[in-house]
Amino acid sequence: FCVADLKAPETPTGYHCKPLTNITADDFVFHGFVAGDTKNTFNAALTSAFVTDFPGVNGLGISAARLDIAEGGSIPMHTHPGATELLIMVKGEITAGFMTTSAVYSKKLKVGDVMVFPQGMLHFQVNSGKGEATAFLSFSSANPGAQLLDLLLFANNLSSDFVAQTTFLDVAQVKKLKTRFGGRG
Amino acid sequence: FCVADLKAPETPTGYHCKPLTNITADDFVFHGFVAGDTKNTFNAALTSAFVTDFPGVNGLGISAARLDIAEGGSIPMHTHPGATELLIMVKGEITAGFMTTSAVYSKKLKVGDVMVFPQGMLHFQVNSGKGEATAFLSFSSANPGAQLLDLLLFANNLSSDFVAQTTFLDVAQVKKLKTRFGGRG
Amino acid sequence: FCVADLKAPETPTGYHCKPLTNITADDFVFHGFVAGDTKNTFNAALTSAFVTDFPGVNGLGISAARLDIAEGGSIPMHTHPGATELLIMVKGEITAGFMTTSAVYSKKLKVGDVMVFPQGMLHFQVNSGKGEATAFLSFSSANPGAQLLDLLLFANNLSSDFVAQTTFLDVAQVKKLKTRFGGRG
Amino acid sequence: FCVADLKAPETPTGYHCKPLTNITADDFVFHGFVAGDTKNTFNAALTSAFVTDFPGVNGLGISAARLDIAEGGSIPMHTHPGATELLIMVKGEITAGFMTTSAVYSKKLKVGDVMVFPQGMLHFQVNSGKGEATAFLSFSSANPGAQLLDLLLFANNLSSDFVAQTTFLDVAQVKKLKTRFGGRG
Amino acid sequence: FCVADLKAPETPTGYHCKPLTNITADDFVFHGFVAGDTKNTFNAALTSAFVTDFPGVNGLGISAARLDIAEGGSIPMHTHPGATELLIMVKGEITAGFMTTSAVYSKKLKVGDVMVFPQGMLHFQVNSGKGEATAFLSFSSANPGAQLLDLLLFANNLSSDFVAQTTFLDVAQVKKLKTRFGGRG
Amino acid sequence: FCVADLKAPETPTGYHCKPLTNITADDFVFHGFVAGDTKNTFNAALTSAFVTDFPGVNGLGISAARLDIAEGGSIPMHTHPGATELLIMVKGEITAGFMTTSAVYSKKLKVGDVMVFPQGMLHFQVNSGKGEATAFLSFSSANPGAQLLDLLLFANNLSSDFVAQTTFLDVAQVKKLKTRFGGRG
Repeated sequence: FCVADLKAPETPTGYHCKPLTNITADDFVFHGFVAGDTKNTFNAALTSAFVTDFPGVNGLGISAARLDIAEGGSIPMHTHPGATELLIMVKGEITAGFMTTSAVYSKKLKVGDVMVFPQGMLHFQVNSGKGEATAFLSFSSANPGAQLLDLLLFANNLSSDFVAQTTFLDVAQVKKLKTRFGGRG
Repeated sequence: FCVADLKAPETPTGYHCKPLTNITADDFVFHGFVAGDTKNTFNAALTSAFVTDFPGVNGLGISAARLDIAEGGSIPMHTHPGATELLIMVKGEITAGFMTTSAVYSKKLKVGDVMVFPQGMLHFQVNSGKGEATAFLSFSSANPGAQLLDLLLFANNLSSDFVAQTTFLDVAQVKKLKTRFGGRG
Repeated sequence: FCVADLKAPETPTGYHCKPLTNITADDFVFHGFVAGDTKNTFNAALTSAFVTDFPGVNGLGISAARLDIAEGGSIPMHTHPGATELLIMVKGEITAGFMTTSAVYSKKLKVGDVMVFPQGMLHFQVNSGKGEATAFLSFSSANPGAQLLDLLLFANNLSSDFVAQTTFLDVAQVKKLKTRFGGRG
Repeated sequence: FCVADLKAPETPTGYHCKPLTNITADDFVFHGFVAGDTKNTFNAALTSAFVTDFPGVNGLGISAARLDIAEGGSIPMHTHPGATELLIMVKGEITAGFMTTSAVYSKKLKVGDVMVFPQGMLHFQVNSGKGEATAFLSFSSANPGAQLLDLLLFANNLSSDFVAQTTFLDVAQVKKLKTRFGGRG
Repeated sequence: FCVADLKAPETPTGYHCKPLTNITADDFVFHGFVAGDTKNTFNAALTSAFVTDFPGVNGLGISAARLDIAEGGSIPMHTHPGATELLIMVKGEITAGFMTTSAVYSKKLKVGDVMVFPQGMLHFQVNSGKGEATAFLSFSSANPGAQLLDLLLFANNLSSDFVAQTTFLDVAQVKKLKTRFGGRG
Repeated sequence: FCVADLKAPETPTGYHCKPLTNITADDFVFHGFVAGDTKNTFNAALTSAFVTDFPGVNGLGISAARLDIAEGGSIPMHTHPGATELLIMVKGEITAGFMTTSAVYSKKLKVGDVMVFPQGMLHFQVNSGKGEATAFLSFSSANPGAQLLDLLLFANNLSSDFVAQTTFLDVAQVKKLKTRFGGRG
């Protein structure tokens, strides 16, 4: 194993290893896998245990996150460019799925269900039940990131005309969402 | 090497290998890397030399495509879930880029330029010059696919309300693009 | 993605892919991630969602399991030869750890904690609290297996003398555990 | 290639590369693949040519060791968490094998035999002939380590009760071997 | 992604990553993919966009080069030890191929053709037409190198007798080519 | 593990797995690692334990061979396109090395020495002592092959003029070696 030295530079395969003599059991344990604050535009929270939070997973091709979605909330369309996601239901009901250009694979998930979202696929999770929904996620990468489509498209400074041209959305729609998600142009 | 037997089942790492005695130089050569027909909704054409077109690349982690974009056309926002893309300019001018949730990396490319789009990133290519633009692409996978965002979002049978909920687009906008890209719901 | 055709032969990297036309959302969802029966010699149960249970994870380098340990029970010393394990606490208290030849990395885990057990390391999980303990596990392999040390050493038909010679255990101890775990010799 | 700079930090895939101008043929040659001293508790010696001994193998996924076992000695049960082992008989007779939870694969090996021990499996090598036995080993990793079961279980400071609980060994047996292998508790 | 910091040491999987705040779109674009000077002993030029020229490809398993061959020129026999090569014809005619010990896979390539040279194979490209020939190359590695056989055999300081012994060439032939390619001995 | 079913088709990562119930310890043991017949044009013999000889190594990234070189003999220049080679001296003296375009890394090896030849590099082994020399080889691939330069260049049916053009050898030299190694043209 190779516990991350988060102060040293990264390499294509992860962080430098901490010296063996500095490693303790605490490097392999993450605390704080608890409900996040869902009072935000998504009514949802992602609590991550990625390598930057949890140095023991460095180089091991795995990490975790906790997902809490308030009633009516969702994790909107997003991708993890270099990781498969596995979702374990803990509480409530989530409608989740991913899509290819020829099909949507979507299911209503309840406690006792596990779903897998193959690497790089656009996917979503919506609280489709009553009350809070909670799921535990794991990823096939120590540092999966999360590319939320709305932030990719509407939080940047590309001109609204350009975003419209490359998405076929109406310019007015782009401008409206740029305002919501903090983009300029 | 392992030339694909395209009639046999696939495995997670590619197709079965053709018997060595059936392999000829033709398995390692693709013909037809020529301008595609750009008379379509994108005013653009992608001519692919992926493993299903070109069995010699099976298992080798590489493939190619030719991109032709008519004046005013574009390859709109898309991803390749398991491949990095490398673009070599051949003719005209293309404005290309990819985005993360915190930045856009975009450039106006001319003949003599090469650009790389890291694995799984949302990216675009727009003909920003006069006349046709042409580029040659290569990919770090024998079978990169191409997930066009409009087809993912608007060619499916998810309800328009659900797509609106998971994208923050207006329902009317979703319905308009569902009509354009062939989705139902 | 490549959903496993579990009736076809395996390859070094997983099962053959089912034809795309036969794939449905159900291939990507596992049902039955529920408490297993802990009335056994370990007072513990592992409910697996490995590729043989869950064909959608084929080739994706990830899988899951649910761990239930009755009060006083444990998952004794074991390894996963080709996978890192990540444990998310759900209920109760578990004392877990892994060891190298120079150190033990062990912690008392409570709800809100996550622990990682690097690939191939000998490790253990003991219910060290009151009542049932539950954890969700994920693995960096679609088919991690689980090599329980007692079954490796004492469920086989190697002679007790030979097992004693290669473990430095007393022959009487080996015979006693061979009787318990079903070995002969 | 990338010869290890053993003074620089490690990464998940090996050591930093020495500058090309400092590399000589000596970096690619290991001297001292000779009989080790077998006067120890195992009556056996392992002479390693791992990356820390032999910087030229850095990043190349291979390394070697020489195994000498005195008459009556053995390399007791052990694993290499991230490497397959290949054993080439040089002198004498060795009974070697590995086990899964459902089978033991064991053979009496003589000069002219080669055996493979798949990655992460618990395995053993016993001198089952007259006089010294010698084998050359290679590994599918530049840094395979060697996790001897007795050191994992009995050289640590876990309490004897705890080791007994997680192995089903008798406490007295644990205490006896803790004394032998240097553990406390 | 992980843009190369070319001033830091290399690792087995590439260069250290530049800090995210220092990265701009220019890191992902290579300028100067233009005709090289073919006035040399090969009458050919290779213009490389490898990681040392193009830091954005670091860790992404892909790179590119432009090949120009004057009439009558060639890229003589060579290998890329860790990369597959994919050649896209741009202008003129090139006869290209690779060989195994049992077969030659060779074709006359014209504009519209793509050829793949599997990893590590000895291969060649000869201008077999009238006027200049140009091809764009991509590689399944960020740093493929190029091992020209004549430089391997005849640019070194091994004695001519030794080179003759290990190639079965005549000593006089070796001496003649050592003179041409700058070797001593 | 995945023991090769050598009668089934290959995949890019190896052969199909034999059913678990058909596997015995014999699948993991290779017999016949003995001196080969060195009465041939090279005065040398390679006895291989590759996956086609030794199905237990399938998918494990390792294999072995025994090298015997008569006095005055050699394994001339060759490559293994997808494998690093590790050589362990057993008897006699071998002068071995590999070359890049800028350096030769060559050493006189005696019993007690181990040398590594990085993946894909052109290398050689010459008996430089008195009497037979023997070495044991291992490879970082289950199926490394061996591409002998003389067979690549002179056992094919390319015209001698073409081989001369792509090697800068004299046509007369090419014709002479084509006669020796069985090529036509």
